[in-house]
Amino acid sequence: MDKKKDYSESYFFTEPQPVTPEPVEELKPWAGETRIVGKKLPRVDAYERVSGTAEFTFDINLPRMLHGAILRCPHAHAKVKSIDIAKAEEMPGVHVVMTGRTQGADIPWYGRANAPESKLFGRVCRYAGEEIAAVAAETPQQAWDAVRAIKAEYEELPFVLDPEEALKPDAPRIHESGNQVGAGRQQSRGDLEKGFAEADVIAERTYTVGTHIHVPMESFGSVAKWDGDELTIWDSTQGVYSVMFNVARSLQMPFNKVRVICKYMGGAFGSKLTTGKYTVIAALMARMTGRPVKIFLTREESYICVGNRPGAKMTIKAGVKKDGTLTALHLKNIASPGAYSGGAAVGFQVMELYKCPNAAIDESFAYTNVGPGRPMRAPGFPQCSWALEQMMDELAEKVGMDPIGLRLKNISLVSQSTENNDPYTSTGLEECLVRGAEEFGWKEARAKNRGNGHIRRGVGIAAGVWSAGAGGPPSTATANMFVDGSVVIKTGAMDIGTGTKTVACMVAAEELGLPIEQIKIVNADTGTTPYHYSSGGSMTLPGAVPTVRLAVADVKRQLFEFASEDLEVPADDLEIKDGAVVSRSDPEKSRQISQIIQSRRLMNIVGTGYRGPNPEGKAIRPFGAHFAEVEVNTKTGEVKLVRMLGAHESGRVINRMTYDNQVLGGMTQGIGFGMSEHRVMDRQTGRMCNVNWHDYKIPTAMDVPADHMVVAVDPNDMECNNLGAKGLGEPPVIPAGAAIANAVYDAIGIRVTDAPIYPPRLIKLLAEKGKRG
Amino acid sequence: MDKKKDYSESYFFTEPQPVTPEPVEELKPWAGETRIVGKKLPRVDAYERVSGTAEFTFDINLPRMLHGAILRCPHAHAKVKSIDIAKAEEMPGVHVVMTGRTQGADIPWYGRANAPESKLFGRVCRYAGEEIAAVAAETPQQAWDAVRAIKAEYEELPFVLDPEEALKPDAPRIHESGNQVGAGRQQSRGDLEKGFAEADVIAERTYTVGTHIHVPMESFGSVAKWDGDELTIWDSTQGVYSVMFNVARSLQMPFNKVRVICKYMGGAFGSKLTTGKYTVIAALMARMTGRPVKIFLTREESYICVGNRPGAKMTIKAGVKKDGTLTALHLKNIASPGAYSGGAAVGFQVMELYKCPNAAIDESFAYTNVGPGRPMRAPGFPQCSWALEQMMDELAEKVGMDPIGLRLKNISLVSQSTENNDPYTSTGLEECLVRGAEEFGWKEARAKNRGNGHIRRGVGIAAGVWSAGAGGPPSTATANMFVDGSVVIKTGAMDIGTGTKTVACMVAAEELGLPIEQIKIVNADTGTTPYHYSSGGSMTLPGAVPTVRLAVADVKRQLFEFASEDLEVPADDLEIKDGAVVSRSDPEKSRQISQIIQSRRLMNIVGTGYRGPNPEGKAIRPFGAHFAEVEVNTKTGEVKLVRMLGAHESGRVINRMTYDNQVLGGMTQGIGFGMSEHRVMDRQTGRMCNVNWHDYKIPTAMDVPADHMVVAVDPNDMECNNLGAKGLGEPPVIPAGAAIANAVYDAIGIRVTDAPIYPPRLIKLLAEKGKRG
Repeated sequence: MDKKKDYSESYFFTEPQPVTPEPVEELKPWAGETRIVGKKLPRVDAYERVSGTAEFTFDINLPRMLHGAILRCPHAHAKVKSIDIAKAEEMPGVHVVMTGRTQGADIPWYGRANAPESKLFGRVCRYAGEEIAAVAAETPQQAWDAVRAIKAEYEELPFVLDPEEALKPDAPRIHESGNQVGAGRQQSRGDLEKGFAEADVIAERTYTVGTHIHVPMESFGSVAKWDGDELTIWDSTQGVYSVMFNVARSLQMPFNKVRVICKYMGGAFGSKLTTGKYTVIAALMARMTGRPVKIFLTREESYICVGNRPGAKMTIKAGVKKDGTLTALHLKNIASPGAYSGGAAVGFQVMELYKCPNAAIDESFAYTNVGPGRPMRAPGFPQCSWALEQMMDELAEKVGMDPIGLRLKNISLVSQSTENNDPYTSTGLEECLVRGAEEFGWKEARAKNRGNGHIRRGVGIAAGVWSAGAGGPPSTATANMFVDGSVVIKTGAMDIGTGTKTVACMVAAEELGLPIEQIKIVNADTGTTPYHYSSGGSMTLPGAVPTVRLAVADVKRQLFEFASEDLEVPADDLEIKDGAVVSRSDPEKSRQISQIIQSRRLMNIVGTGYRGPNPEGKAIRPFGAHFAEVEVNTKTGEVKLVRMLGAHESGRVINRMTYDNQVLGGMTQGIGFGMSEHRVMDRQTGRMCNVNWHDYKIPTAMDVPADHMVVAVDPNDMECNNLGAKGLGEPPVIPAGAAIANAVYDAIGIRVTDAPIYPPRLIKLLAEKGKRG
Repeated sequence: MDKKKDYSESYFFTEPQPVTPEPVEELKPWAGETRIVGKKLPRVDAYERVSGTAEFTFDINLPRMLHGAILRCPHAHAKVKSIDIAKAEEMPGVHVVMTGRTQGADIPWYGRANAPESKLFGRVCRYAGEEIAAVAAETPQQAWDAVRAIKAEYEELPFVLDPEEALKPDAPRIHESGNQVGAGRQQSRGDLEKGFAEADVIAERTYTVGTHIHVPMESFGSVAKWDGDELTIWDSTQGVYSVMFNVARSLQMPFNKVRVICKYMGGAFGSKLTTGKYTVIAALMARMTGRPVKIFLTREESYICVGNRPGAKMTIKAGVKKDGTLTALHLKNIASPGAYSGGAAVGFQVMELYKCPNAAIDESFAYTNVGPGRPMRAPGFPQCSWALEQMMDELAEKVGMDPIGLRLKNISLVSQSTENNDPYTSTGLEECLVRGAEEFGWKEARAKNRGNGHIRRGVGIAAGVWSAGAGGPPSTATANMFVDGSVVIKTGAMDIGTGTKTVACMVAAEELGLPIEQIKIVNADTGTTPYHYSSGGSMTLPGAVPTVRLAVADVKRQLFEFASEDLEVPADDLEIKDGAVVSRSDPEKSRQISQIIQSRRLMNIVGTGYRGPNPEGKAIRPFGAHFAEVEVNTKTGEVKLVRMLGAHESGRVINRMTYDNQVLGGMTQGIGFGMSEHRVMDRQTGRMCNVNWHDYKIPTAMDVPADHMVVAVDPNDMECNNLGAKGLGEPPVIPAGAAIANAVYDAIGIRVTDAPIYPPRLIKLLAEKGKRG
């Protein structure tokens, strides 16, 4: 190895690189009827998933495997004075006790950003839950016993939990450089002052959103195993390649020596875009002990140290003319990414969703002594929706318009947040609003009596746009057609539960003219599948699946070249039917795939696809609108969600079943956002209180309305990529909470500015407004 | 899946298919100096091999894995009357007891040939060791206990062990169609009668060779695991793809649903070219129980039922002129492939090795009630050498020539066994003989006194040619260069212990201009690596490694295309140096690989190589000559091998270390052939007697002479393939035994016609000839 090589070199982690468009095979979205694409198909791995044979990272158990556990600082802010591991090392079954002083463990930790976020084991702990030491032992129980036997002494420091408090001059200082995170985020266009001057009505209101925890079903963990100088990691992650890059950078290894595998993954919602410290710790302890090491976080740990959706305090001011034309939009926000850098911005939709010549956002971020903020399903967007979409409701009322009418009035056909007002490849926002309203029966519901007793009924609506559902390069896929015509497609893309594998197989089968049963997909293994970026940003389907299509098209091209010679017809006259290559113009001319391949002394054909760039000067964004009907019990403050409808436009629907699942799942998470989820911090100790499923309330099947509908708007987008499909992962969580808040307002005339709307909060508001039933 | 699909379709198992040469990138062997190729490098997996971390199939232990064991017929020929499994099924830990009547188990077994060789479980057993039933249980001990509890009743039938006996009219009939195997093998050219008429001297003698067992260090076995309808098999095999095809055909599955993996393999020598019945049985039992199943044969089983090198009874007649010109060669052979079809032919070298216008072979094969014959390192060739090379010695003596002189006189520059006398791409036979003789000190040794006491000294020589060391298509390889310049190459080729992985990495590093540490190879996994045929016939290096070179060249081509744009120099002016692409003509023009790749919005570059056909109208064959010096103790009949030298010509030497290992290993096996190994059958019971390492004597370190030399002849073959390298796996075993026999003759003047030469046999001959010391 070149000794001078710097393995911490950055690869697409910070700024986007200059793009040289690659000559990729030009494929257009299917124009005519499709055999498979668009159908409602069960998942290709449905059997494994329902039978329990699907192998999640938690299921990986290797011979001689040790189990790790981590000692975490119990204080919100403290210096580590000393760590005594002598007793722990003597505990039964213990193989290694590791601290920052252990040889090889004093290394930087690359979580996700290009710069290391911290040391692997810090000497200063900035939130309750930071890593102090780790143990590997024969059993998890022995590891935990040893963790408890470690004697760490701390010097407790004053702490601060609230971002506004943190920015005060006398606040406890969390980092040397101060508590302010960079310069915040400011963006504007037009002239706000002029915009407000032109307005007939101006409204201003402050909204707050609590902090949410991702709470995936599968916890966080890794298994690490060394073979010589090669490291294999099984990880519950959203991006095997990201883990490969980060671990390789932490351990100063070349990329081809780190293999990361994630065959099945039990949820993440953004929290597993970060490479865990536990992953690097497992790798180090495996190297030290010469045995595989598994570390899985407890449920409690998963609440405090692997991420959250930062709360927000948003003040929004808007101006509108009597006819509903928006003249000015201004959002101020203050939020905290926790103790380390991370995103807490929310403002994008203010600049993008509605046509408005004068708009600005002004966001400030402060470090606080709480766990790290991480992207969470549509990072920043549900928060913004909570404020913006309630404001739209307020404006509609003030100018006497229907909330849908006001939104339709301000639909934009260009992306105002881009420098040149790039037109959208497709925008279905109008159709989402119109068809959604029809299917939901908006007019009838809105006209209905709100109720007279203590049960009040109301309907609400909210819309949304998502910034990142375009996908794009870099992405590589390969396809291998065996001599019997069966095919394996390979992509580094994840299937984090969303159905990527299924849609990829559908697209491959469609392109090849083969039955889907003949396609097998292997994915998310840096040792065997080529690069695709992490699954996040709703970019997996539109990034990875067009690449898969290019790879199988490359196989088809080679096969057709051979067949063209054999059958003496041009390659573009050929198609695959019933396992044979057939001339379209003369179906008598046909040859079995196996014959074609064998006659070339081949046993397989390998194809490669590189994802090309997206069209220049165009914006690619998914849209959606949610409709909710609620019953508010004014005696108890309880809100019952009666029904909900999500109308979404994400380009072409590839699989209507996984499509509906995405929308219903996203809306369900939005229900949690709007109605039940929030982190509760103990202001005395700086620790999180509700670190379990009982106290941190995510919606269950009982909280989801039986009447939960999906409207799929397909705008026939022929430009966004070779499928015509945009991302759908994040959009369905964005407007859900705001739609519920607007329905509550419709029911009881109270604007609930603070999310979530839960009984104690609502009963207080009802009492304040004299509206208790 | 297409229901009508016939998964038993054949793929290159029988006749070669018509070849359409593919337009592959034209690469020539390196003409100038090479950086890495040709060096003496340790294996890339040396650490894993010596540290014990290398994972052989035997090391695969999966959670919930069951262990299987097989009941075998104890009789040489019998009908199975009944099998009572009731008691076995009740034994502790037993999950399944399977017989041919078990649902799904009454299926044909594809061993290696295109037609099934037998049923998985036969009702008639044709040799002692055939499969009757199988058990899977929690532990191997429980499985064996249950096997012993199965009550099978047999009707014993008369049996025959000797091929000549088997061809007699009243012999026990082994197959319905009779005991003769096809029409035997006949080949001839010229006019034998005329040839013998032209001869000054004619000699004729009958030689016999015993049957040998492969005896690899790692026994035979598989682990099978199902995930839904996908089957993964870890197998100790010479060809993962062959196992994939055969298991898929037996179980009627598409190829992409069967994944076969063999990461490390502990020897085979031809015995693991066959797909084991145990493999299919493990797969079936795994499906029935829903748990992984491991079956590993005991050492005893490995002697009786997974193959042997069939013995031979060869009568050779030769005519020669006084000047040493061969005029006629005729070989008759009778041999047995055992109870089922398999190869037992030996005659190729008679038609190929020495220039002789009149030559013929006539071989007959008969079924016998013994275990199956299988290819064994140079199938048929050491047997033929035993006869042919002793005959050459006899002729030399008769015409008064030096044995080397006679051979040099009859060297052929064309392949006489081909229809058009195709010229060889290279032939180093002359150089092997001349340089070998020099290094060995042939003349001096030959002139020396033979000794006067009971210790007699002698030297012998034998030459050989191998038929199949060309390699060729079909073979596919891929290469993946990561953004940091580290590379993974993938090939379905095996490394059965010969060093394939190391030479492939060397060739990739050479082609890419990278240090070898930056290359990683993944191989022998049908789920992740593209097709390469089984490792056999000395065809792995010359088949797979040129393909690997094409794959990395495809990566380089893409990289250079980008760099050519960036640096504004033609692609053919570029080379890779220190992690950068550099202009040869203007070294100032250079760009880091990582920059080039990233700037295209790529994170990796994937290349594919398809092995092209070999040059038409040319013969590609490796040659060799062995030199041996012995001391014969005429009192005890013991032969001490004093020293041995192998001179080999297999084209370019890629790695001199693995090259030497191949030659020394092959010669060692040839020592066993000539001096100690032979199967002993019990004529009363029809069972093999010496089924263990104590009684079946393979050479140990103590049997190999300390003076064990290798001469590497490199003829600078620029035609055979893009490496210039031919196969070397088999050649070193071919002439070893004959060289020893000729040395024994030189020492004591006794022609030992029956192999091996072991003390009881030699003492008898010495006594007969009145030469006991």
